[in-house]
Amino acid sequence: MTGTAPAPFTADVYRARMARAAETAAAAGLAGLLVAPGPDLVWLTGYAPTADTERLTLLVLAPGRDPVLVVPTLEAPDAARAAGASALTLRDWTDGKDPYAVTAGLLDAGGTFGISDNTWALHLLALQKALPGTSYAALTEALPMLRAVKDPAEVELLAAAAAAADAAFEEIRTVRFAGRREREVGADLAELLRRFGHSQVDFTIVGSGPNGANPHHEMGDRVIEHGDMVVLDFGGLKDGYGSDTTRTVHVGEPTDEERRVHDVVRAAQQAGFEAVRPGAACQDVDRAAREVITDAGYGEYFIHRTGHGIGVTTHEPPYMIEGEEQPLVPGMCFSVEPGIYLPGRFGVRIEDIVTVTGDAGRRLNDTTREMVLVD
Amino acid sequence: MTGTAPAPFTADVYRARMARAAETAAAAGLAGLLVAPGPDLVWLTGYAPTADTERLTLLVLAPGRDPVLVVPTLEAPDAARAAGASALTLRDWTDGKDPYAVTAGLLDAGGTFGISDNTWALHLLALQKALPGTSYAALTEALPMLRAVKDPAEVELLAAAAAAADAAFEEIRTVRFAGRREREVGADLAELLRRFGHSQVDFTIVGSGPNGANPHHEMGDRVIEHGDMVVLDFGGLKDGYGSDTTRTVHVGEPTDEERRVHDVVRAAQQAGFEAVRPGAACQDVDRAAREVITDAGYGEYFIHRTGHGIGVTTHEPPYMIEGEEQPLVPGMCFSVEPGIYLPGRFGVRIEDIVTVTGDAGRRLNDTTREMVLVD
Repeated sequence: MTGTAPAPFTADVYRARMARAAETAAAAGLAGLLVAPGPDLVWLTGYAPTADTERLTLLVLAPGRDPVLVVPTLEAPDAARAAGASALTLRDWTDGKDPYAVTAGLLDAGGTFGISDNTWALHLLALQKALPGTSYAALTEALPMLRAVKDPAEVELLAAAAAAADAAFEEIRTVRFAGRREREVGADLAELLRRFGHSQVDFTIVGSGPNGANPHHEMGDRVIEHGDMVVLDFGGLKDGYGSDTTRTVHVGEPTDEERRVHDVVRAAQQAGFEAVRPGAACQDVDRAAREVITDAGYGEYFIHRTGHGIGVTTHEPPYMIEGEEQPLVPGMCFSVEPGIYLPGRFGVRIEDIVTVTGDAGRRLNDTTREMVLVD
Repeated sequence: MTGTAPAPFTADVYRARMARAAETAAAAGLAGLLVAPGPDLVWLTGYAPTADTERLTLLVLAPGRDPVLVVPTLEAPDAARAAGASALTLRDWTDGKDPYAVTAGLLDAGGTFGISDNTWALHLLALQKALPGTSYAALTEALPMLRAVKDPAEVELLAAAAAAADAAFEEIRTVRFAGRREREVGADLAELLRRFGHSQVDFTIVGSGPNGANPHHEMGDRVIEHGDMVVLDFGGLKDGYGSDTTRTVHVGEPTDEERRVHDVVRAAQQAGFEAVRPGAACQDVDRAAREVITDAGYGEYFIHRTGHGIGVTTHEPPYMIEGEEQPLVPGMCFSVEPGIYLPGRFGVRIEDIVTVTGDAGRRLNDTTREMVLVD
């Protein structure tokens, strides 16, 4: 599966997005865009094939031309049913034929095309061979902000997904933690996300005690104990748009140190949030959050960037990271999620999705950021 | 998710696979292999990261050198727990650093590297930029048969997955079809696959009446009616290895034409199966099945290849298609699945997984290929 679900927009929305993408490409000096199955294709056309395979499916966008979707004959009926299908021309190819020759016939050789990041190397190498004079640039490098600025309808879909994730947190904080395995709590979280409208669960991280100190630990057979700090980081897709939130709870009363570390992360998350405003750079959000943690003496234990964009996927540009000078623009939506990870002991992370408004940031998640004590 | 689950092999198995892959690469004139998350990485190392993202994870195999897995620092603890981790060296990189420079330092510039098909274009373009003198070839083009020949343990895992799919068919043929929507029957199939041990369901195609004439129709809201032909094509992963089987059932008594078409497909599937033997070419299997359908006058309605390999994925080389001269080798496992699709009316497909033995083919699926009548 491509990992995304089509969102409910009209063909006109997709037509406008494709036209805007082609114009943006031209303005960036590109001859056009090539988009394989995945989030870019979903966003541009509403089409998500059942599987992303060795059979080429590729959207060709070029300024001044109608969009063409190259698609295997077998999958043409499905493609024709996509929400944006009436805004493009289908060009199908049959098993045994050369889809790269079909695609090459649609391109102006000699230019540079933006190509979606997750296009298979198999396809890129075949295109490079079919059109030796043509160059390619990864779409998020050539046009990193193509999907970054959400329109109001998209922001509200993200807000609805965030509200569903918040509802899941309000339920999970009432369940029993002590004596249960991480994966049991994770299964509860997945069920709650689905109950509150998610069609797809991307991750349900339950990092208890020392496991919480590995920010990419998913969940395991560890039995959660009284006295554990537990990182809960979960999200997925609801109506085609992503959720992603983290809260760190404690089983029973925390120690003074646990409370102090949680307070530092909470202050860092607040500082990151307050740095969000139009015109600030992405790295400013990272710096604001990191400064709080560094000043508290935990700088070496904050081992990841502060945030990432969210939209039709749960991880995408823009990235809140040192060196990213991209200015924030109203409509951008991303996570603010600093953390402290004490190896072998425990971790704390707090994460909200934030959108940039006309003059500040607006949190889409809004459950308490105080440490919640669970049983 | 990468769409695969690690299989239960020892580190020695992975060490041997990596050594053999490096040797095979050298024999093919390659400087080495670059393997991103996905089925090749699972097969070579047992490692399947939680998500395949813009953060580079890449296995570097070169003849005469120890395998190195370049991995984001955040994911290093997970990678270290992979079944094959002790057979390789982890080289981690931290957010903000350049993982392509790390990788480039491991490669002999100037050679040609095989790169896994599904590696993101983002990564390939960055490697091409970091090492301008180096060339790349898609892994399934450079070494199409790398994973094609299964060892006996793998064949038995595929046989177990096939047996589970067969068990699902034996149950589904007893449920009510008439009056229910395709997606309800599809949900039954998914539940049955899981009940019989599948950890992942890749597809549950339910093509009733005219929907059966679109071989890639998945399932929809169409209510199945008395008199419908219904194509059931389903599979997924059990213990890390794939299942994929198709049977075409009929709701109530079929017409003479429906019976005739089903008989032709059954004879074609038998002919394809009987063409399986060591030394025969892949295209011979396609030709044998296609000849039966063409001779019966339905040639133009058999609009796809006859089969595809299966292993840690449900679709992989070798392909049973005209032009594929690759000889069959004992241990290869693939589908034999001819079909006839009468547009707007109905379709019939029959599919078994077949493995090549010392002197013939052995079916791993073995439910009846006669037309099953359902209620």
